[in-house]
Amino acid sequence: MADTVFVVGLGPGDGQFLTGQAGAALEQAQVFCGYTVYLDLVRPLYPDKEYCATGMTRELDRCRHALELAQAGRTVALVCSGDAGVYGMASPLLELAEQFPEVDVEIIPGLTAALSGGAVLGAPLAHDFCVISLSDRLTPWQVIAKRLAAAAMGDFCVALYNPSSKGRPDYLARAVDILLENGKAPDTVCGLVRNIGRPGQSHQVLSLAQLATTPVDMFTTVFIGNAATRQLGGKMVTPRGYRP
Amino acid sequence: MADTVFVVGLGPGDGQFLTGQAGAALEQAQVFCGYTVYLDLVRPLYPDKEYCATGMTRELDRCRHALELAQAGRTVALVCSGDAGVYGMASPLLELAEQFPEVDVEIIPGLTAALSGGAVLGAPLAHDFCVISLSDRLTPWQVIAKRLAAAAMGDFCVALYNPSSKGRPDYLARAVDILLENGKAPDTVCGLVRNIGRPGQSHQVLSLAQLATTPVDMFTTVFIGNAATRQLGGKMVTPRGYRP
Repeated sequence: MADTVFVVGLGPGDGQFLTGQAGAALEQAQVFCGYTVYLDLVRPLYPDKEYCATGMTRELDRCRHALELAQAGRTVALVCSGDAGVYGMASPLLELAEQFPEVDVEIIPGLTAALSGGAVLGAPLAHDFCVISLSDRLTPWQVIAKRLAAAAMGDFCVALYNPSSKGRPDYLARAVDILLENGKAPDTVCGLVRNIGRPGQSHQVLSLAQLATTPVDMFTTVFIGNAATRQLGGKMVTPRGYRP
Repeated sequence: MADTVFVVGLGPGDGQFLTGQAGAALEQAQVFCGYTVYLDLVRPLYPDKEYCATGMTRELDRCRHALELAQAGRTVALVCSGDAGVYGMASPLLELAEQFPEVDVEIIPGLTAALSGGAVLGAPLAHDFCVISLSDRLTPWQVIAKRLAAAAMGDFCVALYNPSSKGRPDYLARAVDILLENGKAPDTVCGLVRNIGRPGQSHQVLSLAQLATTPVDMFTTVFIGNAATRQLGGKMVTPRGYRP
C-alpha cells in the first residue's frame, strides 16, 4: 500500500521554529529525505529515524527517491529549510508526483527567511513586499533584473534571498544598482541578517548606498525598505500607516 | 521593574500552526492583549491567562496598553494572526516603544497566509512573489494600483490579502483589471483559500479571468500565478525551474 510524502518546512533550523504540525509530521515519518545540511538540522531531534541525504543540486533525485519510498509503503518526510513552498521542494515534488498517483502528498508550511529574519530586524515587511532570489542557477539574470526594477517602481519592501555565492560575488551590488536606477533612494533603510536562528546570528541596519559595498554570503538575507521605512533604535521598521 | 512585550504571530489560528518559540512566549506571558477575534483563537489553549481585548481598529490603544502593562512589570503577549510583522502589530508597537525605553520588546514570527494558504493550494509561491493588501484603510488606492501594475510587469506570483470587505466589494475585480492591463494573461492560473486552518477551510483553482467575477470575503486569500504556473491535479504549482 502506497503511503505519504510530507514536504516539511523546518523554518530557519533551530527546533523552536518548528510548528506543531511540522513536528507531528516528522514524528509520523519513518524516513527523512533531504539535502544533507538540512537533515543535519533535525538529526539531533530525531536520532532514531532513517536518513537519506542527497547533494545540493540533486533536487529531482531527492523527490523521486521520496516518492519511490512512499510508493513502497514508507511514510516519508522530505525536509526543506524555511518554507516548503518558497523556493522549496513542494513544487518539484508535486510535479513529479503526477507519476505516482497512489502516493499522498501533504505540504507543511514553515517560516521562510523573510519572516524569521524580519523578526530579528524588527518589522521590515509590515507593508506590501516582494521576495526575490538573486540566484541565477534556475532563472536567467534578465528575469531577476526585470523583477528588481518592478519592485523598485512599485516602492515595495523587498527581501532578497541568495544575495551572493562564490561564483557571483557582485550580484548584490548589481541588484542595488538596478534598484537605484528605478526609483529607490540611496538613503532607503535596509537590513541584513546572517545565520538566522543559528549559532552566530547577527544583524545590521544600513542604507541602500552602503548595502552596495557590504560583503554578504549565502547565509545572509537582505531586506530593503520602502520610502517610509525608518531606523528606530537599531531596528528596521516599515510603518503600516498608524502614527503614534 | 519594567518587563517584556512579546509580539506573537499565531499563524492561521489553530494551535498546530504555532511555533515552539511562540508557544513558549505565550506560556511565559501573564497578560494577553489583542484584537478580540485573535484572542479567542488562543483562549482554549491558555484559559488561565489574563485577557485584555480591544476592537478591530484600535491598534494604537492596544499597543499603548501592552507597553503600559509591561512598564508596570507584567509580562505581556500582544497577539496577531499570521505573522507578527506582515501587516501585523510589530510595526506600530516598535514605533510606540520609543516612548517606553525600559520595556523589552521581542518579535516572534508566525506563518503568514501567503505560506499557510500556499501549502493548501500546493506550491503557488515557489518562485519570486509579492504580497499586496487590497485594504485602503491605511493606504491610498493609487499606491495599491501602482503596486499591482508593478507586480504584473515583473511577472511576479502574487498573494493578495484583504481582497474584499463590505465597504469595497469590487476591489478584487478592479485589481484583476489592473493585472490584465499590465501584462498578466487571462488564463494565468490562480487560487483562492478561504478560512485557512480554521473550520470550513476550502480552496479553489481557477483562471485570472474567472477570478474577476468570483465572490470573495475578508477571510479569503487570493493567489495569482506567474506565466509558468500550472494546475496539476487540482493543485496550483509554480515551477522553480526543475523539469521532471
